[in-house]
Amino acid sequence: MRNLGMPSYSQKQWLTQLQGSKYADGPVDVYNQNGRVLELEERVAALLNKPACLFFPKGTIAQFCALKVSAEQRRNNNVVLHSMSHMVLDEDDAYQTLLGLKGIPIGDHSSPFNMQDIAAITEKFATLSVELPIRRAGFKLTQWEQLEAMSQWCKTKQIHFHMDGARLWESTSHYQKSEADISALFDSVYVSLYKGLGAMGGAVLAGETNFIEQCKVWRSRLGGNSFTSFPMVIGALDGLDNRLKRIPEFVLRAKKIATLLKVFPQLEVNTPQTNGFFVFIEGDIDELTRKAIQLNEVMGIKLFNQLSPFPKSKKLMMEIQVGANHEAISDQEIIDYFTSLCR
Amino acid sequence: MRNLGMPSYSQKQWLTQLQGSKYADGPVDVYNQNGRVLELEERVAALLNKPACLFFPKGTIAQFCALKVSAEQRRNNNVVLHSMSHMVLDEDDAYQTLLGLKGIPIGDHSSPFNMQDIAAITEKFATLSVELPIRRAGFKLTQWEQLEAMSQWCKTKQIHFHMDGARLWESTSHYQKSEADISALFDSVYVSLYKGLGAMGGAVLAGETNFIEQCKVWRSRLGGNSFTSFPMVIGALDGLDNRLKRIPEFVLRAKKIATLLKVFPQLEVNTPQTNGFFVFIEGDIDELTRKAIQLNEVMGIKLFNQLSPFPKSKKLMMEIQVGANHEAISDQEIIDYFTSLCR
Repeated sequence: MRNLGMPSYSQKQWLTQLQGSKYADGPVDVYNQNGRVLELEERVAALLNKPACLFFPKGTIAQFCALKVSAEQRRNNNVVLHSMSHMVLDEDDAYQTLLGLKGIPIGDHSSPFNMQDIAAITEKFATLSVELPIRRAGFKLTQWEQLEAMSQWCKTKQIHFHMDGARLWESTSHYQKSEADISALFDSVYVSLYKGLGAMGGAVLAGETNFIEQCKVWRSRLGGNSFTSFPMVIGALDGLDNRLKRIPEFVLRAKKIATLLKVFPQLEVNTPQTNGFFVFIEGDIDELTRKAIQLNEVMGIKLFNQLSPFPKSKKLMMEIQVGANHEAISDQEIIDYFTSLCR
Repeated sequence: MRNLGMPSYSQKQWLTQLQGSKYADGPVDVYNQNGRVLELEERVAALLNKPACLFFPKGTIAQFCALKVSAEQRRNNNVVLHSMSHMVLDEDDAYQTLLGLKGIPIGDHSSPFNMQDIAAITEKFATLSVELPIRRAGFKLTQWEQLEAMSQWCKTKQIHFHMDGARLWESTSHYQKSEADISALFDSVYVSLYKGLGAMGGAVLAGETNFIEQCKVWRSRLGGNSFTSFPMVIGALDGLDNRLKRIPEFVLRAKKIATLLKVFPQLEVNTPQTNGFFVFIEGDIDELTRKAIQLNEVMGIKLFNQLSPFPKSKKLMMEIQVGANHEAISDQEIIDYFTSLCR
């Protein structure tokens, strides 16, 4: 099935892709030594213009390390983060139940928080975490001037400013800034190696040398020191070569699709800032879901994962993301799909 | 270089091996769904004769889940484990600093603990963990009768009996018992998918259905829910087909090599119970290390990783393990190697 979002490959397709890579030669990394892990870390460090980088097999583990080290350095376990952030909604409360941190969630279900929300916090805290964009709040980006103000404020208060940059690569177009320009505002930056970049998984954490050194022991404690990670590493290096430069095109296509969908009176369509956005529809969830599954099968395309209820409304929500194989689906097919769905 | 222990493959060699597998067809697993993860879990469950199994990308994470759930069930954070166990020595104290558990380490540097050691513990504890074999104490196995007694004792006291079975596959020959017979004594069993079995990494945790269910949320919290793990999964299924039945041969070869080395008056050689054992030598560590590295290069073979000081003695220790490509190194070469090293 043709997928508008992240392409789905079979095992064989993945293996063929890895075999064909120019990074397929050479020894495997063993517990993050000897293979191409260092090469990957150095390339990401250069892109983000940070002194040090560390590879992780999983993004959640990368962020755990950043939050934990920052908490240790300040002897304060409080973290300010968005109420719709990945850490709050998608990790079974690990940052609190596993790491012993305490979250101070701010911001509402459809927009980023700003300096005013932060200034209103009365408790002391060690870390301010900003997700770029906040997927669960509709892939919304914090305004640039707000990011600058937060960065400045954190410096004054000696608060650690952390970026959940799972979709940093997808955020540069909107800001019209480089990854390095955006990262410069933050003390630590987590970036994902799959999603937009197209690797098989994995993440990199960037920051000051001393900070990243302290993260190493936590990477080990959290089981982030894998026997080998080379399938992720090869894919990530390829992604930096070939996929990264295509990401602005994904954002443009998302904007194009949003424009097409705004014509439908039955749909409420957010304006994309990245390659992802929300579309809302009213109706019976079971009926619409049946219709969508049938359309997927008949047309052989997948435009969104599922319809789900949206908080504080009677609307149903579809999450649309644009990925590497988006050109395999035409604008006309998308129009036809929604024409049938809205009928 | 020919390696007596775990074979070391290049990236290309790994990829070729995966491409050639009969398990290379089909979809990838995505967050442990859809691919061959379930097939792997079911095969290990059958082998260990446990009602439920759960795949993990990393063994340490599998054990964390077992210990954490057991502690939660009993509202008691104390864990009794061997002072030379992997959890105590090789994980940067994660079970205490990350999981908030408290270790009660027993047993000395060269032998497993027994029922007498356990009965002497005055504190209440939730979990008794036994490593089979204890690698850092010389790959020593707990006596069968002791295991039976511990199992019985744990049942009476409602203590969770956990097996760190990183090398369970390598332990069956010594006991002359199946994996299922050994596992029957334990409430939960962790087994490794690499090392003897030859996958690219990964682990499985086995136990009662309810227990394994409760482990799932901790797997997610600990970042053990990977985007995809199919390279590990394919290798593990191949390992169960092809490697598992060869492991007793590795144990026999280890015994053979130990017999050869016992002839050297300069060496003190432990009798292997599994595919691994310790060899001791006296002398200057720098000089012997230089000699060993030179011999590796000249002869093109690697028999052990390094010489290291051994606790409470003036002896130096070599850890010898026998792996899948051991036949590429002849007995005569091993004799020649040690003849030169001892000269």
